[in-house]
Parts: sequence; C-alpha cells; structure tokens
Amino acid sequence: MELYGKDLICTQDWSVDELEAVLDLAGQMKQSRFSPKYTDLLKQRTFFMVFYNPSIRTRQSFECAATELGGHAQFLEPKSMRLKTEASAGETIEDAAQVMSRYACGIGIRVLENSINAYGEGDDLVRQYARWSTVPIVSMAHDRFHPCQGLADIQGMRERLGNLHGKKILITWASGSLTRSACSVQEDLLVCSRMGMHVSLAYPPGYELDPQVIQWTRENCKNNAHDFEIIHDPFSGYEGADVVYSRNWMSFQAYGTGTLDKAGEIEKSLSHPEWICEPERMSRTNDALFHHPMPVDRGYEVTDDIASGSRSIIYDVAENRLHVQKAVMALTMSAP
Amino acid sequence: MELYGKDLICTQDWSVDELEAVLDLAGQMKQSRFSPKYTDLLKQRTFFMVFYNPSIRTRQSFECAATELGGHAQFLEPKSMRLKTEASAGETIEDAAQVMSRYACGIGIRVLENSINAYGEGDDLVRQYARWSTVPIVSMAHDRFHPCQGLADIQGMRERLGNLHGKKILITWASGSLTRSACSVQEDLLVCSRMGMHVSLAYPPGYELDPQVIQWTRENCKNNAHDFEIIHDPFSGYEGADVVYSRNWMSFQAYGTGTLDKAGEIEKSLSHPEWICEPERMSRTNDALFHHPMPVDRGYEVTDDIASGSRSIIYDVAENRLHVQKAVMALTMSAP
Amino acid sequence: MELYGKDLICTQDWSVDELEAVLDLAGQMKQSRFSPKYTDLLKQRTFFMVFYNPSIRTRQSFECAATELGGHAQFLEPKSMRLKTEASAGETIEDAAQVMSRYACGIGIRVLENSINAYGEGDDLVRQYARWSTVPIVSMAHDRFHPCQGLADIQGMRERLGNLHGKKILITWASGSLTRSACSVQEDLLVCSRMGMHVSLAYPPGYELDPQVIQWTRENCKNNAHDFEIIHDPFSGYEGADVVYSRNWMSFQAYGTGTLDKAGEIEKSLSHPEWICEPERMSRTNDALFHHPMPVDRGYEVTDDIASGSRSIIYDVAENRLHVQKAVMALTMSAP
Repeated sequence: MELYGKDLICTQDWSVDELEAVLDLAGQMKQSRFSPKYTDLLKQRTFFMVFYNPSIRTRQSFECAATELGGHAQFLEPKSMRLKTEASAGETIEDAAQVMSRYACGIGIRVLENSINAYGEGDDLVRQYARWSTVPIVSMAHDRFHPCQGLADIQGMRERLGNLHGKKILITWASGSLTRSACSVQEDLLVCSRMGMHVSLAYPPGYELDPQVIQWTRENCKNNAHDFEIIHDPFSGYEGADVVYSRNWMSFQAYGTGTLDKAGEIEKSLSHPEWICEPERMSRTNDALFHHPMPVDRGYEVTDDIASGSRSIIYDVAENRLHVQKAVMALTMSAP
Repeated sequence: MELYGKDLICTQDWSVDELEAVLDLAGQMKQSRFSPKYTDLLKQRTFFMVFYNPSIRTRQSFECAATELGGHAQFLEPKSMRLKTEASAGETIEDAAQVMSRYACGIGIRVLENSINAYGEGDDLVRQYARWSTVPIVSMAHDRFHPCQGLADIQGMRERLGNLHGKKILITWASGSLTRSACSVQEDLLVCSRMGMHVSLAYPPGYELDPQVIQWTRENCKNNAHDFEIIHDPFSGYEGADVVYSRNWMSFQAYGTGTLDKAGEIEKSLSHPEWICEPERMSRTNDALFHHPMPVDRGYEVTDDIASGSRSIIYDVAENRLHVQKAVMALTMSAP
Repeated sequence: MELYGKDLICTQDWSVDELEAVLDLAGQMKQSRFSPKYTDLLKQRTFFMVFYNPSIRTRQSFECAATELGGHAQFLEPKSMRLKTEASAGETIEDAAQVMSRYACGIGIRVLENSINAYGEGDDLVRQYARWSTVPIVSMAHDRFHPCQGLADIQGMRERLGNLHGKKILITWASGSLTRSACSVQEDLLVCSRMGMHVSLAYPPGYELDPQVIQWTRENCKNNAHDFEIIHDPFSGYEGADVVYSRNWMSFQAYGTGTLDKAGEIEKSLSHPEWICEPERMSRTNDALFHHPMPVDRGYEVTDDIASGSRSIIYDVAENRLHVQKAVMALTMSAP
C-alpha cells in the first residue's frame, strides 16, 4: 500500500485498509511517542497550515504533530496572503498551491462556514488546492468533512470498546449557543459506518445533513449488514447505545443567503433545550461512552457530570488528534 | 530538590533554594549557551504560550528559549481559542487546560490589565489553569506577578554587584505615557527582599501597590534583618542606593470600574514630571546601577544618558530573560 | 571573503564577488537541499522576521529557510511590539534592536508603502535597525529594495539562459489592480545591470522610479559596456528581449500626501489596459522567458497562457527565494 503523496479530504475517499494503516501507526505512535523511529520522519520539513478560519485544537495538534516528527508547521492566515477573491485582485489558488508545493512537504487547509458563501464552497476550495498542489493536501476541517477528527474518534472508541463491529453509536444534535459546522458529525457518520457500527442519527426537523453523506452512510451500513436509522426525537436513540455523540450543528439554511446568520441560528438552537445528553437518558444505554470533538458547550450539549465522568472519552479523543495526524503526515508526506 | 512538574506563578511560592537552583542553571546556560548539555532538554516538545495580551520581550524570549532547548513554542491567542467568557459560549479552562496538557510539556500564560475587569482576576485565571493542567504553568506576566522578570533582574544585578545581601535597591514610580501593570515591580519587591536587599519603595500618593505584596516584602526583609521603607518623594530614596529601578505603573483605581481608563491614567501620570531618574539624583547614590525591565519610556522614566550609560544593565537583564526561562523550563518541564 | 555579520539591504551595497558567493551556495543548496552540510548551519538559532507589512512568499520562504538550516524563524508584527511612533509612546529602535541582537542570529525587516508616510522612510527604518543591531539585518522587502528577490531572479534566469552577459531584459510596467511597491523592480534594475545584462525599462509617464536607482543602473550598465534605455511605449521594448518582466508598480505620487491613495492608484493603473504582456508582443522577442516575482495579476499584467507557459519561470524563481535566503543566512549568520 502506497500512501505517499495522497490527499486526505474525507475518509470516504480512502479504502478501509488505508484507514487501518493510519490507525495502526497512530496506535504505535501513542505507545512510543518520542521514539527515534518517528522523530526524524519530517526532519526540517515545512508543513503549511492555511487557516481560513481560526481554530483551537486543530492548530495546537497539527503544529505539535509537525514538531514531534522533526518538522515545522507554519501558521498561515489567507487574510495576509493576498489571495484572489470575488471582491479583490490577488493570487490564484493555481499559483499559490504550486509555489507552496516548492517549499513544503504538505499543506493543511481549514475553511468553515464564515469564510464561504454557501455550503460546499469549502470542499470545492480544498479540492482546488489538491488539483494544483504537488504535495499532499489534508483537510484540517472544512464545511463538509473533518477526516482527522473522524479517525481520532475511531481510535478513541476502540481504546475502550475494542472492535467496533456491531456496536451502536448515537449521533445526536444538541441545543446550545456554540453553534458550528456539521463537518465532524458528517465525517463520523461515514467513518463509523465504514468501521461496521450501527448508526443512529437524531435531530429535530430543520437540521438535515448533506444528502450525499446520508446516502454514503446508508450504503456503508448496508455493505456491513448493519443498521442506519434517522430519528427525530431526543430520547429513543439512547436505547442500547454503546457510544453517545451529542453535539450542536448549524442548519444548512444558515448558508443560503450568502450572509451567515449566526445569531438567528443560536436563537433557533436554544429553542430546543430538551436536546441535551443527561444522566437519565444515559442510563438507558449499554453503559455508553460519551464522545464529543470539543470544545464542549457544557450545560447545553451535555451535563457536566457526564462530560467529566469516567465514561467520557473527550480528552482521549482530543489527544488522539495528535497521534492520528502524525500518522497521516508520516504516511503521506515522509519520503519512503 | 525536585522541580519537575512545578508551576511558577510567583517567586514567593518557591523556596530560596529553589530560586537559587534556577539562577545557578541560568548562569551556566549563559556561559555555554548552545552546549549539548542543554540543546536536547525539550527535544521536539511543545510549549504553549497563551497570550491574552500581546508582548514584545516575553514572546521573543520564551519562543527563543524553547528553540534553544530543542523544542518549539506555539504562539496562541485566546481570542482565536473560543474560550468561554461571561459574554459568550465557549470552552472552559477545565477543558482547555486538560487537553493542552496532552500535547505540551508546559504552558505559559500572559494576562494583563486590559484583558480583565478587576485587579486580581489575572492571577485567578493563571491559578485556574494550574488547577486543571497536568503540566507546569509558568506566568509570562500577569496582573500581580512576573516571576521570570524578577529572576532575570536578580541575575543581572548579581553579574555586576556579586552577593546582593545588604545592598540597597530603590524601586521608584516614574512619570510617562507608557503606562502599564505593576507586576514586574511587585515581583521585584518580593524577590529582592528574599535575596537580602534593603528595599526602598517610592511613589506619589495614589500609586499604592497590592497590600499582600507589601506585607510579604516587609516579612521577607524582617527575616533577613534588612530594611523596607516606603517614601513619597522622588528624591530621598536615591541616597546610598546600589540599584535604581525607575518605572511607571498604573494605579489600581484604573481597574475598578470594569473599563480600564488608560487615557485618564496617562494624563494623571504626566502630571508628575518630577518623578524621573536623572543624573543629579544618580550622583547621590552609591554609583548605582540603572535597572528597568523594558520597554523604557526614555525622557520620562529616565534620561537618555542614564538608560544608555555604562551603569545601565537593561540589555543584560533583557538577555537574562532568555537564560532564566530556559532554566525554569529545563528544571520544571524536562523529564528527569 | 568574509560575509559573516554583514547586512543585506540592497544588492548594490555588496560586491559582485559577494553576490556570486551567495548564488554559488544557493545553487548547491538547491541541488542538495537537505544535505547534512547545511542542516545544522543555524542549529537552534532564532531568526526574527519583523513584518511591518504582511506578506505571502516572503514569510513562507524565510520561515522555511530557517527551518531547513536547523533554526527557527519567529514571526513578529510591530503592531504587537509597542514600538515608539510619532503618535504613541513606546520602545525606540535603539532599544529594540539591541535586545533582539541578544536573542537572535539575524533579523529580517519588511516595511512597505502602507506602513510609512513617504517614499524612503522604509529604507531609513531598515538602516536604523542596522545601525543598532549587532547581528545582520536582511531586507525582506522595503520601499526601495528587495535584495533576496533580485538574487532569486538572477538564479532563475541563469538556470535557463546560462551566463547573462549581453542578454537583454525588458522590465515593463503593467496595468492591474494589484498595485504595489516598485522595490522588486528597482532591485532588478540594479542587479541585472551588475550582472551584465542590457536593460530596457518601459513605463507610461507618471510611473518614474527612484532617480538614484536609475543613476546606479546607468553606471552599472556603462561599467559593463552594455545598454540602458528608458522607453514610454508598451510595445517596442519586446524586440529581441531574452527576458520579459511585466509587473505593476504604484507611482511615487501616491506617497506624497502622507495618506496612501491606493484606490486612486488602482483607478489610474486600470486606465492603461494596453500595458499587458501578451503573445503577439512575446513573438517579437528572442523566445523570451517570462518573469514575475508573484503574486501575478493574471489577465492584467500578463495573459494566462504566458504566465502558465513553458517559458514562464515564475515558480522556479519563487522556489529560488528559499535557496537564496538560505545561502544569505548561512553566509552572514552562521558562525564560521
């Protein structure tokens, strides 16, 4: 299997074997974090992190990953990059990506709702970089997908549950004012269904997800002979769940007008306070793990006792971002 | 003595022996700056620098320190970190600190007057990080203290004066429009009195310092059988001084309202032009060193000839920030 | 030849032999990019990048250069540095440069039109840093010059044409709305004429360049017994050219008022659409290379087919920024 040079924009673009290769290496890297086997893999190489949107975990974990592999991650913000936009003259992605390919071993791109005019434009942009770049492009979260988060989630669930085949994950919308893109949720629908989980997706009407993602999830489940159900109440999905993933996402309607209506989204979101992960519901699960990609909106998406409880894997998963990203970078960017 | 894992929020929290261990190592590191003894101590480790407030020397010297120890310092600004505030949803310090502990060997925090609503809130915030973090927290200056500056000051004074026991330092308020926190001044009151100096503190009415710091300074001096005096004129403190530290600080009244009144502070400060370090006063000292943590407001806090003169130790002390911080990071963050 | 400790503010300040030493080393570094001969030259040393103006290529290539030499480049923005300005209290360059010299092996400065009040102030500022710094100062582009761009251009032209003696370069103003400083153009006038090229400079009235640069270029050409002509039409200069460098620059009139009139400049620039590099004109050259320091304003400065065509050296030159800067840093900042 040859992963050198490969882009990672969505886990669905990779085979299960390729994803397993990442997860294997990430597990070894977690065991032997500073082993000399790994510390020179990107020795003095540059990785560009292009942040159309700011971030917390993503910047910390990617920059840390490059450092631990012996390289250096440059923090770049397109607002200082004089890129061409509809409104102003500037450099094309064709030019920017080709030059960056001369300097770097790989390029990460983050582009979310408030840097685009419509859902899907972020994915187009990432794929435009991939078209022109001669080094691998890694999504650091974009409007559709968040592949490194998805892989970190799988690693975290396996650390507690072992083989995930036949386990049930409830992915449920939650209320709250920390509203944001559904990219992590969509990635998990895809990667959990690929890994053989039963998937239960719950949300109130108006929070529909990308139809293409839903279709792929349905196919993935079918291929594994597992279930995929979509429900619209905040309770029934908890029955028998092995993992609960409770998180707010914004509706796609917020994009349509070209001006992101975040205040309106928050107001709409707060009108559904019953969509929260709390102890009574968790008691109906199969002693489920609580998962969330963070930052957590405590008191809205989940109660404090669950987020900080012994079945919460949020910090482990956050740590796994580092290991998974190191593995992806090592496999795709380190010359064999 | 075991310093691995220890937070450094104020020198007063550490024993004199612990502070001496830092100063010893800082001296050796200054002698042999790039010795292989030191260049791998934080090999490929990540140090997070969390800047609630921007900085000049602090960012340069901490980032340089991490580099020289073989690691990498990430420059983080909370405004991009989606942290929870009174005004907006976001991540709690509990969550942020625990995740950062998974990535980093240590975390530096800088939080000054214009990021808080009242004096003392910065100290509370730093100690909240310390509560949740499992790696050491180092203050990179906060509203109450600035421990690395204090240690660099001691190193700089000793380089010229040798043993500081029984030497007299005048710490005097100065006029000027580069108004700022008293954290460096308060740290020096504490650390100079711990190191056995006579301390003379001078300021015009209205520029009182933290009562707790004054009380500790009094106790520290008493323990060493040395003097601590507070005076309110800009002249008499110079008599027999071995070191003069002339610097502006803002009054605590500026915090009270919740909206920092910097313009008012500057106006009030400029109404005291007689509070300046100048040659006539310096002639009454014991050929005193001139010290200042920089940036210097030349022409207001001190005349040019003194700031650039042969008795000025400002550049040496600025350099020592690097060595002291390397020593602190090596001792607290490098696995034994 | 001893280059250690030398500032690089303009190629004209260096001898041809010194420039050739840089170009030789840059060529070797391009051949053996990660050879152990080079990867420890700035081992764990800090290089400060002081960006009064943001940048794209410059930040990427300098930060990458430091990484590949084993060091680390710190990205600093003076707006966070509390430097003294006419309008506000702060630190003098005297103080800032002397302290930075204690931490770093070298300092890069970028200061362009929108950070100054009049043409020439940027050059004064860079030379003020050079006066006080005890480590080398490198211009990362300032209002008058851009030496690393000039050297990268020479390297790129030689890769295709070999010896440049007697070759003709057309440097022509172009229309467009990506208006900017003439520093790269002025640097090329100087360095191309030093390297023995015939130089043809074309622009519409109102876009005159620095008279001192014009005089030096005239003298450089005369010393090499080559031609220097200035023309005012967008066609005739193409005749027999071996290299065409078509690029917009703003007029010096834009500076005079103290408030940069960028909108007015763009409007004036767009009134000259006939100033574009296009195939018909290129057919009259000696199969000329197309050169541009990027970002390219496609469709205005040059047509797409030429910018992306086989005679375009724009990406090679962009890559050469890295190699040239590594060579400059190695020769001036790595202790012999």
